[in-house]
Amino acid sequence: MVITHIKKEIEMEFSAQQIADFLKGSVDGNPDVKVHDFSKIEEGKPGTLTFLANPKYEHHIYKTKASLVLVNTDFKPSEPITATLVRVENAYASLAMLLKLVDQSKERKIGINELAFISEKATVGEDVYIGAFAFIGEGARIGNNCQIYPHVYIGDNVTIGDNCIIYPQVTIYHDCKVGDTCIFHAGSVIGSDGFGFAPMGERYDKIPQLGNVMIENDVELGANTTVDRAVMGSTIIHQGTKLDNLVQIAHNVEVGENTVMAAQVGIAGSTKIGNHCMFGGQVGLAGHIQIGNNVNLGGQAGVGHSVKDGQSLWGSPAFDVRKFKRSTIVFGKLPEMYREINQLRRELDKIKKEFNKE
Amino acid sequence: MVITHIKKEIEMEFSAQQIADFLKGSVDGNPDVKVHDFSKIEEGKPGTLTFLANPKYEHHIYKTKASLVLVNTDFKPSEPITATLVRVENAYASLAMLLKLVDQSKERKIGINELAFISEKATVGEDVYIGAFAFIGEGARIGNNCQIYPHVYIGDNVTIGDNCIIYPQVTIYHDCKVGDTCIFHAGSVIGSDGFGFAPMGERYDKIPQLGNVMIENDVELGANTTVDRAVMGSTIIHQGTKLDNLVQIAHNVEVGENTVMAAQVGIAGSTKIGNHCMFGGQVGLAGHIQIGNNVNLGGQAGVGHSVKDGQSLWGSPAFDVRKFKRSTIVFGKLPEMYREINQLRRELDKIKKEFNKE
Amino acid sequence: MVITHIKKEIEMEFSAQQIADFLKGSVDGNPDVKVHDFSKIEEGKPGTLTFLANPKYEHHIYKTKASLVLVNTDFKPSEPITATLVRVENAYASLAMLLKLVDQSKERKIGINELAFISEKATVGEDVYIGAFAFIGEGARIGNNCQIYPHVYIGDNVTIGDNCIIYPQVTIYHDCKVGDTCIFHAGSVIGSDGFGFAPMGERYDKIPQLGNVMIENDVELGANTTVDRAVMGSTIIHQGTKLDNLVQIAHNVEVGENTVMAAQVGIAGSTKIGNHCMFGGQVGLAGHIQIGNNVNLGGQAGVGHSVKDGQSLWGSPAFDVRKFKRSTIVFGKLPEMYREINQLRRELDKIKKEFNKE
Repeated sequence: MVITHIKKEIEMEFSAQQIADFLKGSVDGNPDVKVHDFSKIEEGKPGTLTFLANPKYEHHIYKTKASLVLVNTDFKPSEPITATLVRVENAYASLAMLLKLVDQSKERKIGINELAFISEKATVGEDVYIGAFAFIGEGARIGNNCQIYPHVYIGDNVTIGDNCIIYPQVTIYHDCKVGDTCIFHAGSVIGSDGFGFAPMGERYDKIPQLGNVMIENDVELGANTTVDRAVMGSTIIHQGTKLDNLVQIAHNVEVGENTVMAAQVGIAGSTKIGNHCMFGGQVGLAGHIQIGNNVNLGGQAGVGHSVKDGQSLWGSPAFDVRKFKRSTIVFGKLPEMYREINQLRRELDKIKKEFNKE
Repeated sequence: MVITHIKKEIEMEFSAQQIADFLKGSVDGNPDVKVHDFSKIEEGKPGTLTFLANPKYEHHIYKTKASLVLVNTDFKPSEPITATLVRVENAYASLAMLLKLVDQSKERKIGINELAFISEKATVGEDVYIGAFAFIGEGARIGNNCQIYPHVYIGDNVTIGDNCIIYPQVTIYHDCKVGDTCIFHAGSVIGSDGFGFAPMGERYDKIPQLGNVMIENDVELGANTTVDRAVMGSTIIHQGTKLDNLVQIAHNVEVGENTVMAAQVGIAGSTKIGNHCMFGGQVGLAGHIQIGNNVNLGGQAGVGHSVKDGQSLWGSPAFDVRKFKRSTIVFGKLPEMYREINQLRRELDKIKKEFNKE
Repeated sequence: MVITHIKKEIEMEFSAQQIADFLKGSVDGNPDVKVHDFSKIEEGKPGTLTFLANPKYEHHIYKTKASLVLVNTDFKPSEPITATLVRVENAYASLAMLLKLVDQSKERKIGINELAFISEKATVGEDVYIGAFAFIGEGARIGNNCQIYPHVYIGDNVTIGDNCIIYPQVTIYHDCKVGDTCIFHAGSVIGSDGFGFAPMGERYDKIPQLGNVMIENDVELGANTTVDRAVMGSTIIHQGTKLDNLVQIAHNVEVGENTVMAAQVGIAGSTKIGNHCMFGGQVGLAGHIQIGNNVNLGGQAGVGHSVKDGQSLWGSPAFDVRKFKRSTIVFGKLPEMYREINQLRRELDKIKKEFNKE
């Protein structure tokens, strides 16, 4: 079967006023200036739109060559600006809306490549794309509007909801369940065996991992991220959670809703994590602990104990982020502290000696 | 050729007495209660078997709805328990035995998919499964009873022993050697070039990596784990060693027998590691060092020097685990120590001044 | 089409004198001794050539059974040596030259396997190898002499220069640009979406990542390394840079020329890194910072602020490497320092009391 492309062309030139109207913002400058592309504020070219959300980048706005800049309503320039401004409540979220509009206008593949392998016992929904060399196993169910790229492996009895995008080289082992509108980036692995071994004298005896992985709606997994199947029951990732690249989720872990983890985070077995948490890159969590809701962990934090709702931790081993920062500053002074303690000791001993002499 | 399934059905309902007999344990409660599935102790349902090995979970046993709980012989309940107990020497190992029994009863694929590519100069053993889109290169040898999943790449002149399971998207580069009963999870890479470059003025000149990787019997590699080939000679993983997901083993490393490494550990080039070591997640080892037998490293430990047999280290840079824990506690008190030293200094200077005045 | 092999056989036995002549070095010992293979100095066999570059391995040279050892011109043996020496300016670089010679003599595959999928709208150069199950998308351009291994995915409109080697299971997303003589190891991912989400009440809204990745000439990416595409514009890796396995490069990062990063390093979004930097394993960098040229970072360093040219940092959070080492030594003495401060306090209070009594 031939792969076709559905391309919804949209007009790609807009005036400042049209953009302000679309975003429910206001124009500050020439409302007729037109843009046809995006640019970064430090590299902006005429005819492009850029944005200012992070105050760190404010100095670029006074020099940018971009024609239009999205800014927050409360932005007060400290120098003259050449570009037209569109003031919106949230410049970053407004940018996201515009990017989405452009993204949705792009072509989308549809159809099943004749070089894909689809088991006769698999069920495939409507309007899907299944690329060459994709493998869909027995009893697997793929929902509507899914995009399964080349070289994806979907094991036996896997179910995948609607509107999912599964990029090349993803492996989903047998029996795993995936909700709607999930995105799995290239090389991610779902349902590999948990790391479970029972010591038997000198050797380790493998504990079969008979559970699965359940991923709810609207979850995104980064490239080469791994999520192990449970020894029994399920490893669970709840809806709206986003994991960056090279993250490791061990067996029987449960990650709450709308939690985000930056790249290379590792979560050990059976740990439970709440909703709306934010973990920096390379964070490590021990197994069998409970992390509450709204917990923030700084990059490279190492957490060995359960953490209550709303806490912010840093360090390895991690503790309160403000206290860690203070200890860290003093850490750099340790050699002088050590010398000073020795000096105090010498002086005090001298005084004691003299004092006793009297 | 058609892929067939070998399914060895086993009776899946057992009484407490049958299970106790099989495990050489004893029943404490109703010997006739029947189970047909496994469950986690905190989620246990009637008709299921669970286990208690980690004392941390003891409070669940007094509320579990599971019908049967495997416990260690010396377990003494502190409250009444509804479930029937089966007392065994090692609850975890007994659970593993039961899980294995169930696992072995599951179907196993056999046969070579007609969409696989197998070089005419490759040798394939008996009773193998080779999935669609698997690639077996020239001169490669695959032993008996191996399961090679779709999208596996086995390079030229690779040899693989009997009873290995190689999951999708695994790459084994040319000339590598693999023993019997190994399991390689999805996306793992064996035999990629070691990271070797000679500085040549401004540039780096690649040092060809002409060695290979040798993996002995009974080794398990986690998903997306990488093992680089040696510059000359072999990178070696000895028998019974288990590596979790996203682990990095650099060129010319040698890992001893029955050593276990949790996820995201990284071992730099030419380092040698002994037998029966246990490394926590995200541990990093420098290159060209020697780690003895029975060495334990805590999560995120960073080790830059050789370590003798039997040591337990933690921290980055790592040292004796008990000492590290003590230093860590004091680390949190650094700001108050700093203030106290300054206060001592002021008071001592005042005393010295007054003392000299007299 | 049939895959052919181009094999350029070279004579593989050389005398010490021939090797010295080739390397512009001098013979110290029997110039007629012959070698036909390489070996490690600690495992050297008769008839093999080995090298001594790292002084740590010097003790092996007095016992090695290798027939020939490359050493630096200034090497002064402290004991008698049986092997013949070839003295060269840089033993490691000379070894690299010899290994390269052997490597180039090995066969190279050429031809396009009939099981590859190549879009009719793709352009493929001359003398390429494209393996079975490789996928080349619409509008993609592959340069001359490239080797595209089985299971590689090259997305629509990707361009790849000449003489590149792309190993199995690599994914290159649409629109990415790759220069000449690059090497991408198995499982590496180029162009996956950057990790960008705008908070929308309880949920996160995906920010489409509309940019791409640009990789200049002579870049090597390790196995399972990931490089995300930019939100707009490009994530850039400049020429000559080498990344080891499992490295993470986030969206809009720019890495300078001839920079090397060891395994498992992670760079967060929009950070810019200079030329000739060296990062140890598991280093983590925050987003939106600037790292100068010639910056060295020790293994597991965590860097949250911009760093000037030529600095060497270690620790998490990282600071000057010499200061970090000194603080680290004192860190191990924290418990005794804490006790000593308390002791000083007690003694001082006692003196004050007695002093005031008088």
